[in-house]
Amino acid sequence: MNIPASQNPRVVIIGGGFAGISMVKQLANKPVQVVLIDKHNYHTFQPLLYQVSSSGLEPDSIAYPLRKIIKKQKNTFFRLAEVSNINHKARVVQTSIGEIAYDYLVVATGTKTNFFGNKAIESNSMPMKTVPQALNIRSLILQNFEKAAITNDKEAREALLNFVIVGGGPTGVELAGAIAELKNNILPRDYHDLNTSDMQIHLLEGSARVLPPMSKQASEKSEKFLKALGVKVHCNTFVKDYDGLKVTTNTDLKLESETVIWAAGVTGNPVSGLQEGTVVERANRYLVNQYNQVQGYDTIFALGDIALMKTDAYPKGHPQVAQPAIQQGKLLGKNILKLIEGKPMKKFKYHDKGSMATIGRNKAVVDLKTYKFGGFFAWFVWMFVHLMSLVGFRNRVIVFFNWTYNYINFDKAARLIIRPFHKSK
Amino acid sequence: MNIPASQNPRVVIIGGGFAGISMVKQLANKPVQVVLIDKHNYHTFQPLLYQVSSSGLEPDSIAYPLRKIIKKQKNTFFRLAEVSNINHKARVVQTSIGEIAYDYLVVATGTKTNFFGNKAIESNSMPMKTVPQALNIRSLILQNFEKAAITNDKEAREALLNFVIVGGGPTGVELAGAIAELKNNILPRDYHDLNTSDMQIHLLEGSARVLPPMSKQASEKSEKFLKALGVKVHCNTFVKDYDGLKVTTNTDLKLESETVIWAAGVTGNPVSGLQEGTVVERANRYLVNQYNQVQGYDTIFALGDIALMKTDAYPKGHPQVAQPAIQQGKLLGKNILKLIEGKPMKKFKYHDKGSMATIGRNKAVVDLKTYKFGGFFAWFVWMFVHLMSLVGFRNRVIVFFNWTYNYINFDKAARLIIRPFHKSK
Repeated sequence: MNIPASQNPRVVIIGGGFAGISMVKQLANKPVQVVLIDKHNYHTFQPLLYQVSSSGLEPDSIAYPLRKIIKKQKNTFFRLAEVSNINHKARVVQTSIGEIAYDYLVVATGTKTNFFGNKAIESNSMPMKTVPQALNIRSLILQNFEKAAITNDKEAREALLNFVIVGGGPTGVELAGAIAELKNNILPRDYHDLNTSDMQIHLLEGSARVLPPMSKQASEKSEKFLKALGVKVHCNTFVKDYDGLKVTTNTDLKLESETVIWAAGVTGNPVSGLQEGTVVERANRYLVNQYNQVQGYDTIFALGDIALMKTDAYPKGHPQVAQPAIQQGKLLGKNILKLIEGKPMKKFKYHDKGSMATIGRNKAVVDLKTYKFGGFFAWFVWMFVHLMSLVGFRNRVIVFFNWTYNYINFDKAARLIIRPFHKSK
Repeated sequence: MNIPASQNPRVVIIGGGFAGISMVKQLANKPVQVVLIDKHNYHTFQPLLYQVSSSGLEPDSIAYPLRKIIKKQKNTFFRLAEVSNINHKARVVQTSIGEIAYDYLVVATGTKTNFFGNKAIESNSMPMKTVPQALNIRSLILQNFEKAAITNDKEAREALLNFVIVGGGPTGVELAGAIAELKNNILPRDYHDLNTSDMQIHLLEGSARVLPPMSKQASEKSEKFLKALGVKVHCNTFVKDYDGLKVTTNTDLKLESETVIWAAGVTGNPVSGLQEGTVVERANRYLVNQYNQVQGYDTIFALGDIALMKTDAYPKGHPQVAQPAIQQGKLLGKNILKLIEGKPMKKFKYHDKGSMATIGRNKAVVDLKTYKFGGFFAWFVWMFVHLMSLVGFRNRVIVFFNWTYNYINFDKAARLIIRPFHKSK
């Protein structure tokens, strides 16, 4: 694999998400050799993918080259590859570019979209977990606008302008709000050959309220915000089928839509090869102890979304969001050095910094441990936290400028169909 | 086509390049109905495509939504479509979305890459006329770097790191300089698992000097700049064949390269349907009179790169660059109103504002009528002119910030393989 031999033990990290890069940074120029493997050559700031889908941000501003992250780490190597299997007996991972040996292995492969086994939904709806997927949604929305402008058939036009977002978690709520802003601000101004009233945004949530992991106040406020933007919120509603045009649900609600965006759930994205029982069914997460060691292994670890660490405070594991991933990555970076030195490792303890979601211009909800709030100040906090979490000064400046520009101009300016999306129908 | 009926004559403009949008703007809210047709939903600022290819700029900053350009023009409609034929008897254009009738037709379809009939070169080399093509080059360069990092075969690695640019016009020269900066600044810092000396950039030019349309001083200076950056310049050299690996030329020069970028020439991109003889062979441009009327037609016009207007000063037609296109578009916008009113039209006269090319950091050449210069000040002028020519305040700020960032940091930060490029081999 052309990685120079080293006196130091080799730590192989699969996945350059929040967990992976947090650990990689911790191991900068420490007495280990680090190999970071990812199938993309960049880190994706997933919390802002929805703004790429809705033309608010260019894709390049939420992606960051992984090699730029490690450029000052002489002990760290990046490999662009897909990992297919772990051979834990031989201590190698099998990848699209050959085998890579490890002394310590860290799996930080995150999650993938969960279609709950429905093949029709999987092939007809749009997932939004990667930059290319977000760009596909951006293209499809804009293509639909163009098609609607030349369609005389009222039903066909409405199906083109009906946007159905499945899943009322943060991703679904934020995307619904952003698409509503396209309707309210962009359509009347730039599409004077379209009728704004023909466009509808439907948000479907299976449980009794949107943002189910957040507080009841947050759910109520965000539902109010969504309705003010014109989003039709359907709680206790889940999609039973979608053939590319007709959406059927568990209720009387039937919709015709060319665009169903699937934000209804994720499932772990484990790598095959470990002994049975290490991956917990349904969740598809590796069972780990409080040092993030995968059950049954001393030198294999799992981090972030893919790790299921059952504790008294979190009997079902930590929430699959950025903070646990970042905190675990940082701690494991320290722990692995202790392990190598034969010193005792430190147990992981999650510091919940709170959660938040934005619904649109001046509209957000924030849940802190002691204080819950919504509205303009929450929106400001949301922006600040997300801006500061972006990797790299350049990306921060470009996102900040875009937000300022969009705010002043009520605009979303990245409305480009660079690669048209072709529906498989 | 769902375009509302109008009392005013309809002007259909095919192509939203420099010529098309210059004319569209001129007709804002004038007593005509304007229909702008383009196969992309954005205007491309072609002079900066090479910076997208070389990871210096994000694609979204050099593309501008066509609908944003016309948003304040209530008399103007945009249609996303490909035009396949002109039926001049019925006065309609046939497009991928159906027929569109016109009273006046303006063809501003520009040029396409000219492979001079060599199919092997066409299928194996990379053209750079559109944003997706520029992104393909960006992906291929970065993919080659990653492959080179894991290749133990010296020859294979050199073929991956050999970049051959064919054509020493402004596009070829500017791209060669930008790729040389990747070699000099990015490789040593971010690819410490690659040997910088394994990377070579070859620029091949068929005539006796690079930048043949510019002054001799400019050619000499830019060749000196290119050599200082490490580019190997081969004049009087043209490619005879390329099979995806081996480049053969008219001289002894033989190269092995995975990446041949074809900037060796363009040819017109006319629409079929007009009578024989309207399109001049070889150049593939419409013969037009000094009002840009296509020979033999009163109500069909051609603008910019696709128009061949033979004048005493320009017996072979105007240069196929932005300025003639912009100036012709503006004048035809005024002339067509005069034609409708039965007033005499004004003849086109080209105001040559000079030409320029940049080779890299602090390095550019400028030819004005009375004054020719190169170096830092020329580079500054180049930047200012290009920045001010970009459409839209947002794009200007983002490009300006990127340039400043890249300048201070010796960086090109948009190094993202968003859509991997798959060679057809």
